Amino acid sequence: MKPMGTIPRDFQVDPLQIGGRDAAHWAAVAGDTPLFVYDMAVVRDRIARFRAAFSSLDLHYAIKANPFAPLLATMAPLVDGLDVASGGELALALAVKPGARISFAGPGKRDDELVFAIRSGVTINLESAGEAARALAIGERHGLTPRLAIRVNPELELRGSGMRMGGRASPFGIDADRAAAVARHVIDAGADWRGFHIFAGSQALDPQAIIETQAETLALAGRLADAVGVMPPLVNLGGGFGIPYFPGEVPLEVGIIGNALAEGLENRAPGLKDTRFAIELGRWLVGEAGVYLTRVVDRKESRGETFLVTDGGMNHQLAASGNLGTVVKRNYPVTIATAAPNAPTETVSVVGPLCTPLDRLADRVTLPVADVGDLVAVFMAGAYGLSASPFAFLGHTPPHELLVGQSEHS
Amino acid sequence: MKPMGTIPRDFQVDPLQIGGRDAAHWAAVAGDTPLFVYDMAVVRDRIARFRAAFSSLDLHYAIKANPFAPLLATMAPLVDGLDVASGGELALALAVKPGARISFAGPGKRDDELVFAIRSGVTINLESAGEAARALAIGERHGLTPRLAIRVNPELELRGSGMRMGGRASPFGIDADRAAAVARHVIDAGADWRGFHIFAGSQALDPQAIIETQAETLALAGRLADAVGVMPPLVNLGGGFGIPYFPGEVPLEVGIIGNALAEGLENRAPGLKDTRFAIELGRWLVGEAGVYLTRVVDRKESRGETFLVTDGGMNHQLAASGNLGTVVKRNYPVTIATAAPNAPTETVSVVGPLCTPLDRLADRVTLPVADVGDLVAVFMAGAYGLSASPFAFLGHTPPHELLVGQSEHS
Repeated sequence: MKPMGTIPRDFQVDPLQIGGRDAAHWAAVAGDTPLFVYDMAVVRDRIARFRAAFSSLDLHYAIKANPFAPLLATMAPLVDGLDVASGGELALALAVKPGARISFAGPGKRDDELVFAIRSGVTINLESAGEAARALAIGERHGLTPRLAIRVNPELELRGSGMRMGGRASPFGIDADRAAAVARHVIDAGADWRGFHIFAGSQALDPQAIIETQAETLALAGRLADAVGVMPPLVNLGGGFGIPYFPGEVPLEVGIIGNALAEGLENRAPGLKDTRFAIELGRWLVGEAGVYLTRVVDRKESRGETFLVTDGGMNHQLAASGNLGTVVKRNYPVTIATAAPNAPTETVSVVGPLCTPLDRLADRVTLPVADVGDLVAVFMAGAYGLSASPFAFLGHTPPHELLVGQSEHS
Repeated sequence: MKPMGTIPRDFQVDPLQIGGRDAAHWAAVAGDTPLFVYDMAVVRDRIARFRAAFSSLDLHYAIKANPFAPLLATMAPLVDGLDVASGGELALALAVKPGARISFAGPGKRDDELVFAIRSGVTINLESAGEAARALAIGERHGLTPRLAIRVNPELELRGSGMRMGGRASPFGIDADRAAAVARHVIDAGADWRGFHIFAGSQALDPQAIIETQAETLALAGRLADAVGVMPPLVNLGGGFGIPYFPGEVPLEVGIIGNALAEGLENRAPGLKDTRFAIELGRWLVGEAGVYLTRVVDRKESRGETFLVTDGGMNHQLAASGNLGTVVKRNYPVTIATAAPNAPTETVSVVGPLCTPLDRLADRVTLPVADVGDLVAVFMAGAYGLSASPFAFLGHTPPHELLVGQSEHS
């Protein structure tokens, strides 16, 4: 038997309730399995937690975490900005937010994407001197003033983060020691300079690490502002707030991070006096809100082990199968959504329908006894789920997506 | 500097030619980058090699390796059968091959997929006793005789294979010690029993390992036939032929495998006297035929390292980025398709446009010097490429696909 992560406290279990209804209800609403159910009440709770902890900061949603259109439309009025990573995401964002509230980061922005962003009045977070030159040339060619910020590749890195994005040679951002020069260059060229974007890592669960990183990021922004000689209108401090996927991990306490950051902002460099600050979050806002529901299609024994074979797997939940940036397969929290309360348990593996041993949603976990027709719930499915998965793989029907709990008082 | 795999000998390089034209030509035909180009001449060469080595065997194509419809249509008349893994793949296969030439394997077949398969006269490779019961019940309900084969989970495993599918508790197939009983059961229930499907692993590059596995598979099929007491019409011996992705790997010599198998078939058990035998291949037939072409959008230096940032990456080529079943990132063969002959070289990393450090197509390789606008070619892109990748991730436009060299004499 292997351990699994902890089911988010947002959900009542035994039996599972999502938005006040059981899993079979949502499967019936969708008309078929598999499906993703996103509970907007959980997202609203995270936004409220953010507002309570970081009252003076802007909140940006990084839509790459989950670009499901109804979710995006419901979240847009609740956040101050949207961050996009491609022309496709930009089109989604513009449907729900004005261009002035959108920023576009990402290496390898194509010329057609830069044109689209500049025409839409979107802030482009420049990833290199070459990209700065291309954006300026496009602005010139179209008679438009591009809104440009500098994405900085900081010396610092976010300790203990699942994905380090600073402190090393990187495709992301302009090395800190050249960032001020590129900022000066775009200002001198007549662009509308929007400030800095400094992102040191993601999926961190240690508040002290985030506190230290934010302090260093603030100090770096101050030094860069001095070097540029112009007050940056906005400094995007990045995000990095993690969620607890695996055994032993616990939710991040954001209150103490907010307190430390407020103190840091009180004492910030004079060159940042009138600067606004933003935190950009994706996974932390939506990750725990999503539940993936897939139906047991077969139950089989093989050499003493029991397998529940479900109608969806790594084709919809690549990360849960351990195939997206993880070296060792660990178990996400999983349950049998249709089990009777206090049902007896057994040790089983949950595998998807793909003809590959990689397709395993849960490896030898203890679950309520289940049979063909039961629904398996995989939690932590709200971020980097469907859109980050190879859903065409092996030709299965794409899953349904439902947003529930839209109404604030439902 | 890190090594990379060897470019398949099928392609002339310096400069790269695909189907007699250069990469820029195919990008112009597609109208945009990124794109996959599949060279049918390479696929025909592999089919010819198979026919030369295994003259008495049926050749099945496992379409999960590459379900691109024009490729499928061109291959269908050249192979004896198509193997599918879902209802979606079955629909693709039925467009180009009669149901009697199609088999359907895969755990977690849904009832609607079983109905579709039984109605289409497709052979269902049963993965469990439970699936056998469901298929028989559906046949009964619809007044149809299902064509059923038994997929066997063998005791043996394919040594050195990239993906072992036998020799352990498994979602795939019925344990060998129960397979004959399930075969008897479906025969007694009036099904059209088609035989056995025995698949021990995939992506093997050691001919001796394949020879041994085929010999053991043949022996197992003989024992199973005796136990059933009925001659199996077909035994699908599986596949497992690998292709050389990584440094130091060399192409598989299939001639000696064919010789050994021919000898084994000469001496096969009497219970298999009139049985036909098939080998099922996907990756080996099409993997080396594909080249992924992506354009350099940015060239940047960071802390002494050079990055070429391309307009496609792990969203189209998940396996090449090291995120599909591999623990350590190793480099696929890659080149600059648009480099002048004998251009000077440099050490660079090729990264895609996604905002994640996972998106790396080549790590510190030696390539001809390239700049914005150049085309990067990633080889070994014909199998488990686009369809096995999260192409919606971060909202980039899906890549184009081209089949070239369709005409036998072009």
